[in-house]
Amino acid sequence: MDISLVPTPCPVIDLPTLRSNVTVMASIHPGSRLRPHVKAHKTTAIAAEQVRAGHSSFTCATPREILGLVSAGVGTDLLLANETVDPARLAALSKAQEHATITVAIDSLATLQAASSAGIRNVLIDVNVGLPRCGIAPDSAGELADAARSLGLNVRGVMGYEGHLMMVTDREEKKIKVHEAMTLLTQAHNDVGGDIMSAGGTGTFDMFEGTQVNEVQAGSYALMDTQYALLQHPFAQALWIMGTVISVNSSWVVIDVGLKSLGMDHGNPTVDGYKVWFCSDEHITMSPSEGTVTPRVGDRIRVTPSHVDPTMAMHERAYVVDNGMVVDEWAIDLRGW
Amino acid sequence: MDISLVPTPCPVIDLPTLRSNVTVMASIHPGSRLRPHVKAHKTTAIAAEQVRAGHSSFTCATPREILGLVSAGVGTDLLLANETVDPARLAALSKAQEHATITVAIDSLATLQAASSAGIRNVLIDVNVGLPRCGIAPDSAGELADAARSLGLNVRGVMGYEGHLMMVTDREEKKIKVHEAMTLLTQAHNDVGGDIMSAGGTGTFDMFEGTQVNEVQAGSYALMDTQYALLQHPFAQALWIMGTVISVNSSWVVIDVGLKSLGMDHGNPTVDGYKVWFCSDEHITMSPSEGTVTPRVGDRIRVTPSHVDPTMAMHERAYVVDNGMVVDEWAIDLRGW
Repeated sequence: MDISLVPTPCPVIDLPTLRSNVTVMASIHPGSRLRPHVKAHKTTAIAAEQVRAGHSSFTCATPREILGLVSAGVGTDLLLANETVDPARLAALSKAQEHATITVAIDSLATLQAASSAGIRNVLIDVNVGLPRCGIAPDSAGELADAARSLGLNVRGVMGYEGHLMMVTDREEKKIKVHEAMTLLTQAHNDVGGDIMSAGGTGTFDMFEGTQVNEVQAGSYALMDTQYALLQHPFAQALWIMGTVISVNSSWVVIDVGLKSLGMDHGNPTVDGYKVWFCSDEHITMSPSEGTVTPRVGDRIRVTPSHVDPTMAMHERAYVVDNGMVVDEWAIDLRGW
Repeated sequence: MDISLVPTPCPVIDLPTLRSNVTVMASIHPGSRLRPHVKAHKTTAIAAEQVRAGHSSFTCATPREILGLVSAGVGTDLLLANETVDPARLAALSKAQEHATITVAIDSLATLQAASSAGIRNVLIDVNVGLPRCGIAPDSAGELADAARSLGLNVRGVMGYEGHLMMVTDREEKKIKVHEAMTLLTQAHNDVGGDIMSAGGTGTFDMFEGTQVNEVQAGSYALMDTQYALLQHPFAQALWIMGTVISVNSSWVVIDVGLKSLGMDHGNPTVDGYKVWFCSDEHITMSPSEGTVTPRVGDRIRVTPSHVDPTMAMHERAYVVDNGMVVDEWAIDLRGW
């Protein structure tokens, strides 16, 4: 199928670019050195590309992401890098332990108790390294690990997400701050024990030399987005939302891609050759830039979302393209909670 | 089921409030005077509430919304108030004409041709009344209607969405501007003919006295959101996203409702009794306001989304509550395109 025939709005993924991103990252962080975060793409077919590049451990943000990977038989070592006290979902994760190693992050006695009650066998102590979100204070991590072991759980180590540093643009400043954060994580790790020291994201993937971090939780690198692209990484944009021009006049153009098909938390999308005026539920209104030929109704136009993760979560499927032809259709099958 | 047992994050709809909103609107715009817009809720069960209140005509933004209503047997007169040139989707709408009256908005010869080729029988001329989006210039509307009739189509009239005026807060100023916009629509209607003059939304639903508008396309009134609530309408918030506290410390609280479960184009959500710091993909970080008792992990907290329409589109189902008990579970079954 020619790319001009996909039903719009829909995500289109450039397969060579995706594969290049996955290959480049696997050369920097091979095998278990990378625990790819599936929340960025929510697609088992992309996780399978990451398996083919040598990774078998994955990071997930929701129970549904873990259960979906288990159903698809993708990955053998799955981390819920997030807290939950939902007994039904923890029970489902517990049951899935028959098929994969499942590890759940905990940061409190309450989350420990919930995991333990459901029969979860492996936990990781989630440590706050500066981002005001989940994670126990570094100097309390050892005590929580002791409590987990006293309940018979296997404590695999620590994780700490330095999300507040992802968008620091000065590399030297970023390296100093990441190392400060990882010093906190190391202190916690010394008290906690276990093999794993997990951290990082696409914004900091190359900042861990000289630290004891032994796995990086990057996810966005596979598809990339305009914000991370500012950091000048060796990864390229592989995802767009394809739209169709539905209305044209002398001043503006309307396409059928709107805010229900775009993550909007990083602001408006961009469109090459156009100035985006505003997004409605099902439309972008925009004007051609100087030099852009006014399109016709029915023409296809690619939209670059400002934030890939929530954009992927809005769509049921993505079309996979290579050299202008659709070569596959992938279900975005890890959506929901 | 007690409301405290719903799996989070999830939409919860207060049934008495929803029914009050629907009843109040039906008393102001009874029967065909209202053509409720289903894009606001994407839920056939809510459309069925609107049918019980006396409406049988609906406004849709996507072919999927129309086809879903047809499948559910809800509504008899369905308008696609949006342009499309997708041959497959227009063919599906054409086939659905066996089961309901389906009308498609057109604003150009290209959209007319696409509708005609697919066998669509009824069209409405979409007229630009000031919002820079779809819609033909008012003085070209008659010519497009003539072209449609020459192809054998039934031209039912005109629609014009004055979306640029929804959030004007001064009622007198708004009324003057809405009437100016409707003067443009009336001029077009005079040239186009047909029975229908369709316009409006929740922000302007009570602005049409003295105009020839004979159906109002409001949708958000059923569930409401914080932005429309600023307008002091007789409708109340009926939708929240229920969250669970997953992490607590002395400075902040984290709940499992994040930007993947909230429309973010109107900015951050609000949480009664808390100051929202920021949203991540799966979290809100916030601090208790003075007087709010610090919650415990596992406690439930209701989040008020800033924009209902895209929020509903992110969830598979909503829990319907009455007096603290879950009385029903509704599929949000009109999602997608």
